[in-house]
Amino acid sequence: MNPYEYVETHRDAFLDELFEFLRIPSISTLSEHAADVRRAAEWLKAHLEGIGMTHVELVETARHPIVYAEWLGAPGAPTVLIYGHYDVQPVDDPEGQWQSDPFEPVLRDGNIYARGATDDKGQTLTQIKAIQALLASGQMPINVKFVIEGEEESGSDNLYPFVDQNAERLAADVIVISDTGMKSIDRPSVVYGLRGIAYMEIEVRGPRQDLHSGMYGGVVHNPAQALVEILAKMHDEQGRVTVPGFYDRVDEVSAEERAELAKTPLPEEQLRSETGVPAAWGEPGFAIHERLAFRPTLEINGLVSGWTGEGAKTVLPAKALAKVSCRLVPRQDPHEIFGLVRDFVRAQTPPTVTSEVRLLHHGMWAVVDLKSREMQAALQAYEFGFGKRPTFVREGGSVPIVGALQRALQAPVVLMGFGQQDDNLHGPNEKFALACFEGGLRTTLRFYELIGQRG
Amino acid sequence: MNPYEYVETHRDAFLDELFEFLRIPSISTLSEHAADVRRAAEWLKAHLEGIGMTHVELVETARHPIVYAEWLGAPGAPTVLIYGHYDVQPVDDPEGQWQSDPFEPVLRDGNIYARGATDDKGQTLTQIKAIQALLASGQMPINVKFVIEGEEESGSDNLYPFVDQNAERLAADVIVISDTGMKSIDRPSVVYGLRGIAYMEIEVRGPRQDLHSGMYGGVVHNPAQALVEILAKMHDEQGRVTVPGFYDRVDEVSAEERAELAKTPLPEEQLRSETGVPAAWGEPGFAIHERLAFRPTLEINGLVSGWTGEGAKTVLPAKALAKVSCRLVPRQDPHEIFGLVRDFVRAQTPPTVTSEVRLLHHGMWAVVDLKSREMQAALQAYEFGFGKRPTFVREGGSVPIVGALQRALQAPVVLMGFGQQDDNLHGPNEKFALACFEGGLRTTLRFYELIGQRG
Repeated sequence: MNPYEYVETHRDAFLDELFEFLRIPSISTLSEHAADVRRAAEWLKAHLEGIGMTHVELVETARHPIVYAEWLGAPGAPTVLIYGHYDVQPVDDPEGQWQSDPFEPVLRDGNIYARGATDDKGQTLTQIKAIQALLASGQMPINVKFVIEGEEESGSDNLYPFVDQNAERLAADVIVISDTGMKSIDRPSVVYGLRGIAYMEIEVRGPRQDLHSGMYGGVVHNPAQALVEILAKMHDEQGRVTVPGFYDRVDEVSAEERAELAKTPLPEEQLRSETGVPAAWGEPGFAIHERLAFRPTLEINGLVSGWTGEGAKTVLPAKALAKVSCRLVPRQDPHEIFGLVRDFVRAQTPPTVTSEVRLLHHGMWAVVDLKSREMQAALQAYEFGFGKRPTFVREGGSVPIVGALQRALQAPVVLMGFGQQDDNLHGPNEKFALACFEGGLRTTLRFYELIGQRG
Repeated sequence: MNPYEYVETHRDAFLDELFEFLRIPSISTLSEHAADVRRAAEWLKAHLEGIGMTHVELVETARHPIVYAEWLGAPGAPTVLIYGHYDVQPVDDPEGQWQSDPFEPVLRDGNIYARGATDDKGQTLTQIKAIQALLASGQMPINVKFVIEGEEESGSDNLYPFVDQNAERLAADVIVISDTGMKSIDRPSVVYGLRGIAYMEIEVRGPRQDLHSGMYGGVVHNPAQALVEILAKMHDEQGRVTVPGFYDRVDEVSAEERAELAKTPLPEEQLRSETGVPAAWGEPGFAIHERLAFRPTLEINGLVSGWTGEGAKTVLPAKALAKVSCRLVPRQDPHEIFGLVRDFVRAQTPPTVTSEVRLLHHGMWAVVDLKSREMQAALQAYEFGFGKRPTFVREGGSVPIVGALQRALQAPVVLMGFGQQDDNLHGPNEKFALACFEGGLRTTLRFYELIGQRG
């Protein structure tokens, strides 16, 4: 049985296994889910042993283990390092927007609905199942190493040192990362650029504890008010970030890149229907798809202060907190950006309150060489898997490990993403289309065959 | 035994009863505490029957019952209507600032610590215990009616219609309200003015659900950002409210009132040590105590949007909510102020998001006639109870029922508050000094004797 036939005949089993994997609520950012995160790692370990990987281990870290696995039974053939993550985003759903339990996956209208369906359990399992098919069919064209972490959604703090300290052991000819998306299954695309990130907390403090707003309102600077006044100064009326120095290292974009990107525009009409917003927004002088690909942002991810429950509480809050993240583009440095924001907040904090800015996590942007032989192989593989020649795109999201792996292993990266733009990763009703799972399997099989032929 | 001796000999029993009352977590604003609120009402009903009130009933409302009680056994003597409330503020304490369980009262350094200790269970029970002492000693100088509600902390929605519809039944010669404070036990004071309130929610909505901040950041207007931009526009740099028309009905304050109030200043030093803020804040042109007494405010009581948990979640929130309240001074109207804020928010909402402003509850300001015979009796009673002639003050807080009772019953109001400025009502470690309980009892007894003599 060739690997394509193997995949066809094991369709139902693969889906059962994915559902099993998705049922584990491995939310890495919440400490109460630490045991679930470990359970997901152990599930993966057993699974990788089951498909025939010759060495599998849980690498313990200060927090969640890294699953490492290898099969090096094709001497002389090229080695592929496959990266994925088994942790998922939290599911806060106060309004009950999830139509089904996020950790009880269901198949509805050809889509698998579950937290982690596309980000990144579905995509990670696509890679594993492709390797299983190649191993089972006895036609393994490559050597393979898996690095599957459990902290991607909470900053990958322990992965970076692991990669740096194990560069020799992880050495590979190609790095494959399945943690991005395509425009849609009808418009396959390969990501060649990603934004970096600096994720911060801004806290403003006033009185030592919450006060009665009648007894002190008007004579004590309300920290919530001071915070909104600081935050409001971070953008101008047009939506440009006003933090001094923020754009200093941002490159002009070449005409060629603009032209390539113009092949996959995001019309305002489509943005409105995808998101439900009344109108698009953003920096003047750039098309919507250009803002996402080429421009850095400063975004409020969360706000909390005082009374947030039902009804009224007449409190003058002791403090106010904002979670703020910047998406970064080539040549911006996350630590430098953090410093600029910290200095800006400091300068804008009035003497009537105090403030602090903390860097929670960060990651570098990445741009992959379009002309590499691996990227050209990816083009062919996608065309085989999805029936259409893909376009090259730069994405607004961040997969900081891309840049870190590139630098540590000095190998070309291919971002083999199979999600779709509307998969709603990080939001409610996250999904992964069955057709993407299947097309992704065919693409991956062909890609490894092409890589192997070149070995 | 005269009533003063009765109070002396029943000191411990009174304290036990107060502790029993304080143990019931009657948080009216949280629907999960509805049964506790009812339990507090039933406790009060039994208690009022126990002290000899001749008619006691729970008046059912759409939400929490009103406890009504009367004793009309002194024909010809004046009738006093006593108002209190048995519900309490919520206790959200994410940082564990409460030094003891808010619903397990403890006596520490001469203070009773518990949620509701001063606001308003301690003060309500002071009134009840004074009436008990007068009844038990056979020296009852007045007729008495109690109206004790369970929705003061959530807007008194059902009390207003009850008062309006029962004006005849509630008819009284004097209205006594024990729900305010004194400067301190060493500087007794009687409140003659209170601010009104308009409590609102401002909600800004953007996308129909939370989005991935990398995939849409920079092209969709972040509702949290839009909200902070709107809120930041509500004050100028000096701390004046910028909502057009906000100050239009605010009266100039007379030189006499300024002079009376200057007897109880709030020096910046004292404000800093009471609250822990680095510096005072507020409208230029007014002393700190004047801002609290005479000036309206617009205050953020709560903020919530997006990810507010531990760590990072790279979400672009679907919506952002602020709880905002205005403290109002004479001639400002809560509905008019709500309309001004709503129009301001509407005018400041960009076309890239939508917004809504909702009025959660409101209450009128009140000013009591300083020269009334009842206020003069209160002066004497305080001097007897606390050993010092009290000053008259206007307070920053709101007890909207004051104005409502004044208007419905056409009777003079006396605000017999026994709390202290630093009792931390609405915050953590709310307390009520034992000496205030005891001084309050003596003051109340003497006040009813004085009122009775005049009957």
